[in-house]
Amino acid sequence: MSKTALLLVDIQQGLDNTAYWGPRNNPLFESNVAALLEGFRRAGIPVLHVQHHSLRPTSPLRPGQPGHDFKPEARPLDGEPIFAKTVNSAFIGTDLEAYLRQKGIARLVVAGLTTDHCVSTTVRMAGNLGFEVWLVGDACATFDKPRPRGEVIPAEMVHQVNLASLDGEFCTVISTQEALERNGL
Amino acid sequence: MSKTALLLVDIQQGLDNTAYWGPRNNPLFESNVAALLEGFRRAGIPVLHVQHHSLRPTSPLRPGQPGHDFKPEARPLDGEPIFAKTVNSAFIGTDLEAYLRQKGIARLVVAGLTTDHCVSTTVRMAGNLGFEVWLVGDACATFDKPRPRGEVIPAEMVHQVNLASLDGEFCTVISTQEALERNGL
Repeated sequence: MSKTALLLVDIQQGLDNTAYWGPRNNPLFESNVAALLEGFRRAGIPVLHVQHHSLRPTSPLRPGQPGHDFKPEARPLDGEPIFAKTVNSAFIGTDLEAYLRQKGIARLVVAGLTTDHCVSTTVRMAGNLGFEVWLVGDACATFDKPRPRGEVIPAEMVHQVNLASLDGEFCTVISTQEALERNGL
Repeated sequence: MSKTALLLVDIQQGLDNTAYWGPRNNPLFESNVAALLEGFRRAGIPVLHVQHHSLRPTSPLRPGQPGHDFKPEARPLDGEPIFAKTVNSAFIGTDLEAYLRQKGIARLVVAGLTTDHCVSTTVRMAGNLGFEVWLVGDACATFDKPRPRGEVIPAEMVHQVNLASLDGEFCTVISTQEALERNGL
């Protein structure tokens, strides 16, 4: 059986700032993340955290601000590795790939923020690098996307279309409940 | 001024097989690609081709089949480099990044197939690796996406939402006309 890890992407307080990012979808995001974490920790499955260190002066995710910290439901425990990144992909500028290969981790269960930016980019690279990826769709979320002529694509549509573009090509999209069941939880 | 190249992704005959891939959007895709190529070649801007070598036994893009060849409007000229890839990203398993750095190319004008799979993945990595990317939205296209419960997301919606998710984060989305104008054509 493949060795599995839970990979949580950018679950940071700065992403609660909807004045900066716009309206978010999926109000169940936080409780689904908490359920995943509780189950995977109980089963002894490794939990890995990715933390965004924004280089943009105005970003709520810039280091040294409260927004850089993890949200309460995704706070790492002692001993759980934290991978710091400055771009969307958790595989660029980090030693995540080397760590996974060294630990023999072949399957990633992925959740986090945001569905179409850092989660999608990380899932695409994970799949293309040969890892099996289960993407927990209902433990991800994103924000409204403005379009050039001023229309806005609602966050839930952005989320669903991006999941559909990933599913079957880079990963298998599953629910929180399925992620727990597939790991015997 | 940054040195620019036109990067064409997977414009191959096998992607004409709509019985395999489903309905496609953007009937102007081929004529926009032809206009880009004609203009960029006339201006002496480097043209780089990415060709997918599918490893899937049933794929029309598997080497050795007619579908592996380039579509007529995107056929490389002698001297234009061709980067062979087996996954979605043109930066994984290829020497594309080393080639761009060696040639001093800092800006990529990207077009090709499909918007949400190989184009999106390549644009995301290019942006995260520090290249400036202009993505020519109307010189890309994609296919309908089925969803788990049997509904289908129309190709044009998949295309537009994926462009909106990329724009401003990984690249600037422009039109064929803007791509020509920005290069003095």
